[in-house]
Amino acid sequence: MPQTLSLDPLIAKLREIHHIRDAAALLSWDQETHMPAGSGQARAEQLATLQTLAHDTFVSADITSLLAQWIDLDTGTPLSSQKSLPHHQQALLRETWQDFRKARKLPSAFVTRLERECSLAQQVWTQARQQNNFKAFLPNLRSIVALKLEETQYLGYTDSPYDALLDTYEPDVTVAQIRPLFATLRERLVALLGDILNSPTIPDASILSQSFDTTKQLTFGKMILDAMGYDFDRGRLDLSAHPFTTSFHPTDVRITTRVFERDLPSCLFSCLHEGGHGLYEQGLNAEQYGTPLGETISLGIHESQSRLWENCVGRSKAFWKHFFPILQNIFPEQLTSVSLDAFYAAINHVTPSLIRVEADELTYNLHVMLRFEIELELIEGRIQVKELPSLWNEKMNEYLGIIPDNDADGVLQDVHWSLGAFGYFPTYTLGNLYAAMLFEQASKDIQDLPRSIATGQLLSLKTWLNQNIHQYGRQFPADGLVHTITKTHLTPEPFLNYLTSKMKALYA
Amino acid sequence: MPQTLSLDPLIAKLREIHHIRDAAALLSWDQETHMPAGSGQARAEQLATLQTLAHDTFVSADITSLLAQWIDLDTGTPLSSQKSLPHHQQALLRETWQDFRKARKLPSAFVTRLERECSLAQQVWTQARQQNNFKAFLPNLRSIVALKLEETQYLGYTDSPYDALLDTYEPDVTVAQIRPLFATLRERLVALLGDILNSPTIPDASILSQSFDTTKQLTFGKMILDAMGYDFDRGRLDLSAHPFTTSFHPTDVRITTRVFERDLPSCLFSCLHEGGHGLYEQGLNAEQYGTPLGETISLGIHESQSRLWENCVGRSKAFWKHFFPILQNIFPEQLTSVSLDAFYAAINHVTPSLIRVEADELTYNLHVMLRFEIELELIEGRIQVKELPSLWNEKMNEYLGIIPDNDADGVLQDVHWSLGAFGYFPTYTLGNLYAAMLFEQASKDIQDLPRSIATGQLLSLKTWLNQNIHQYGRQFPADGLVHTITKTHLTPEPFLNYLTSKMKALYA
Repeated sequence: MPQTLSLDPLIAKLREIHHIRDAAALLSWDQETHMPAGSGQARAEQLATLQTLAHDTFVSADITSLLAQWIDLDTGTPLSSQKSLPHHQQALLRETWQDFRKARKLPSAFVTRLERECSLAQQVWTQARQQNNFKAFLPNLRSIVALKLEETQYLGYTDSPYDALLDTYEPDVTVAQIRPLFATLRERLVALLGDILNSPTIPDASILSQSFDTTKQLTFGKMILDAMGYDFDRGRLDLSAHPFTTSFHPTDVRITTRVFERDLPSCLFSCLHEGGHGLYEQGLNAEQYGTPLGETISLGIHESQSRLWENCVGRSKAFWKHFFPILQNIFPEQLTSVSLDAFYAAINHVTPSLIRVEADELTYNLHVMLRFEIELELIEGRIQVKELPSLWNEKMNEYLGIIPDNDADGVLQDVHWSLGAFGYFPTYTLGNLYAAMLFEQASKDIQDLPRSIATGQLLSLKTWLNQNIHQYGRQFPADGLVHTITKTHLTPEPFLNYLTSKMKALYA
Repeated sequence: MPQTLSLDPLIAKLREIHHIRDAAALLSWDQETHMPAGSGQARAEQLATLQTLAHDTFVSADITSLLAQWIDLDTGTPLSSQKSLPHHQQALLRETWQDFRKARKLPSAFVTRLERECSLAQQVWTQARQQNNFKAFLPNLRSIVALKLEETQYLGYTDSPYDALLDTYEPDVTVAQIRPLFATLRERLVALLGDILNSPTIPDASILSQSFDTTKQLTFGKMILDAMGYDFDRGRLDLSAHPFTTSFHPTDVRITTRVFERDLPSCLFSCLHEGGHGLYEQGLNAEQYGTPLGETISLGIHESQSRLWENCVGRSKAFWKHFFPILQNIFPEQLTSVSLDAFYAAINHVTPSLIRVEADELTYNLHVMLRFEIELELIEGRIQVKELPSLWNEKMNEYLGIIPDNDADGVLQDVHWSLGAFGYFPTYTLGNLYAAMLFEQASKDIQDLPRSIATGQLLSLKTWLNQNIHQYGRQFPADGLVHTITKTHLTPEPFLNYLTSKMKALYA
C-alpha cells in the first residue's frame, strides 16, 4: 500500500542521530571554550563514542530498511514510491542517500580511531603552536595524515585521493576544477597585488593598533551582530583562541570571537565573519531539523555567508558611513581625528602578511592556494609530513615574498590539519567567489541596498539571504542554487571585478 | 574455559554508556550556565534522546549477555565464574546488576517521556519562580508527579511507593527508617532552637550584608577552593542561578556558585559546599571510570562531603582563625572593625528563615523534614498537586513559625520537583548526619586536625576523605562504609552533639 508510506519514521530516526551529533558538537564547543585542560583524554574518548554511535546508528539496519523503501541503495535511483512526493522531500531522500552511501564506506572502528585521534591531535597542536614546536605535533600529524589516506581508500575516487576528501566538504567539486580556477585567480590577483605594491598610496593602518579597551570592542561587536539580525535569544558570543561558529539547532547557534587591545580589526571582523555563519545556521528551517533540508549546503556556501558580511558589507564604505561615527563615539580619544576615508583605507590595506586569518581580501586567497597545493602534494603522496615546514616557507616566499620567522606563524598557524580537515581550505576561496556573486545579485534585487547599509539597516540583506539560500537547506546543490539566484555558474569574475574596482579607488 | 573470562568487554561497554551520560550531563550543565533561552525545546529533545540511548544500551542484549556470564540476572546471585575475582570486581558486578535490575524495569519510551518532561518543566519552573506564579508551573508539576507515580509502579515497592524513589538516590534506605530518625532529630532540634531563641545573645548578622565587591568575593571563594585541594586543572567554577556540581569524568568536575553584593555567605558557603562535592568527584578512581567503582555511593554520602566542608570546616572557629585575617585584608573597610568572634557568631547565627539553601545548620533540617513530609503525602496519594502551596505554608508555620509572603520564597523555591527528584530531599539531612560522624572520626584519625585547619592547611582532611571514601566508589554500600570508618551505624548523635556544643558556646 504505497499510499500509506510515510517519511516520518525515517525523519524521526534522522533526528535522533542529529541529537547525538549535537551533543558531540557541544562537547567540541566546550573543549574550545570551557573544558579544563586536564580532561583532554576523557573528552577524546567521549567524542569518539558519540561520533561512532551516530555513525553506527546512521548505517544501521533501521535506516537501511527505511531508506530502501524509497531509493535503490546501490545506485541512488529513486523508486516509484517517491513519485507522489513533493520535490523537497525527494531532495531529502537524495541527500540522505548521499550521506548514507559515504558513511557506509567507513568502518565503525575507523570512525572511532579518527575521532579520538583528532580530538587528541587538536590539543597537542594547541600546545605545539604556543611553544612553536612543530616536532611535538609531528607524530600526531603523521597519524592524522595516515588516517585520512586510509579514509580516501574507503571512500574511493577516480582521479585524485584529494577528491574524496574535498567531496566531504564541497560535494561535486574536484581537483580538476579547482586547479584551473585557482590558476586564473592567482594570475589576476598577483597582477593586482603588484599594482598595489607599486602604488605610492600607503594607508596608515597603525590607527587600528592603538589601545582599544577590549570590553568596549566586544560591546561594539555585539551591536553589529544585533544590526545584522543575529538573534542572541537563539545564540551567544564567547571568546576562544580561534573564532568559530557551531550549532546544535537553529535555536542554539553559537559564535566565538577573540579580542586584543591593540588589534581593532581582529574582534570586529571576526564578529562580522562568524555572524555571517551564524545567520546561515539560524536561518535554517527548524521544521526540517535533523534532515538534509535543515542542513547547510557546503562549506563553500557557508563561507560565502561569512565573507559576504565580513568583506562585501563590513569592509565597504557604506557600512562605515553609519558605524564609524558610532565607533568614534566609543573610542573618541583614538578615532576622533581619524577621517572615514582614512579608516576605510586602513581596514582595506593590502599587504603580504604571515597569518591567513588576518590577511586582507586579496592576499587571503594566496594563503588558501598555498595550503591547497601543499595538501595536494601530501595526499597524493609526493611529500612527507616532516617536509611541511620547509615547503611552507618556500611557498610563502614564492607567493607572498615573505618567510615566517617561526613555525607558529607558519605551518602551525591553522587548526585544520589537527582536526583532519584536509580538503577544507579551498572552500574558503570558493566562499569568496560565491560571496561576490551573491552580493552582486543582492545589490540588484534589493532596492537601494547601499543606502540601507549606509544607514545601518542590514535586515533587508539578511532577509534576502534567508529567502534565497538559508531556508532551503540542502534542497539544491551549491552550484545549482547559486545558478538559480545569479543565472551564472561559479566564476571568479564578480570577485575580481569587485576587488579591482575597490582597490583602484583606494590605491589610485 | 572460565580462566579466560574477562571483565574487560563489560567494562568497555559500561564506559561507552557513561560517555553518553557524560554528554547528557554536559547538555544539562550547559542548559543551566550558557544555553540561549530560545533553545529549551530542542535541548529537551536532545536530552531525551541521549538518556534513552544510554538506557537502551544499558539494558541491551550486549550488556545482558555479558552480565549473565557472572551473575544470575533474576536474583543477583553470583555465579561460580566470580569465584576467582577479587572483592572489588565482585562489587563492580553486584552494583552493575543493581543498576541493571532497576533499569530493566523502566520502558524505553517512559525514559524518553520523563527526560523530556523534566527538561521542559525545569525551564518553566525557572520562569514561574521568577514571576512568582505557581499556576504557570502547575501543569508541568502535575505531569512530573504522574510520571513519578508511574515510575514507582515500574520499579515496585513493598511498603510505600516513596521507597521506590528514595532507593534511586539512597539505596537501602526506606521511609520506615527515616520516619523515626527524623522524629528523634526533630524533637531535639526544636528543643535546641527553643533554647537559642530564648537566649539573650543575638549575633549581629548585618555585618554580612554590607556591600562586598562580587569579583573579590569570587577571588576569595577560589582561594578557599584551592586550599581545599580542589584542582582547577580538572575543574572550573561558573556562575548559575542555583549552585551545583556536575562531573563528566574525574578530570572534568565543574562546580557553580552565585554571588550577591550584599550577601557574603551566599558565594562563600556555596563555594565550600560545592567544593566538597567537587572533591568527591575528583577523588574517584579514574581507572574505574564508567563502572560503579568509579561512581559516588549515594546522595547522602555525597552531601556528607559538601556539608562537612561547608559546616564542620567552613563554619568552625579554627577555619576562620586562618581565613578571617585574609578576608579582612580583602574587605578592610567592611571588616577591619569586626572581631573574629563576632564574624564567627554571625556566620553561625540560628534563626528561622524562608529559604532552605540559606538556612543555618539547625533549621536547615527542619526545611528538609517539611519537604519529606509533603512529598510523602503526595506520592502516597493523600494530597493533590494543587494543594502544595497551602500545605507548604501551613507546615512552615508549624515547623519554623514563619509563613512566606509568596510562592517564589515558598513552594517554588527548589528546583528538585521540576527535575522529578522526589525522594531526594531526605538525603540532605542524611548528609548532615554522615558529615558529623565522619568529621568526628577524622578529628580522631588526623593528628592535630584543628591546628591544621587553623593554619589553612586543609589537605590532610582532603586526603583522609580521598583514602577513606572517595577512592572506593561504590565498592561498599553507604552504611557499610561509614560503619567501617566510624564503627557506628547511621546515628544522629554526633550531629546533635556537635551542634549542641557549638550552639551552647555561641548562645551561652
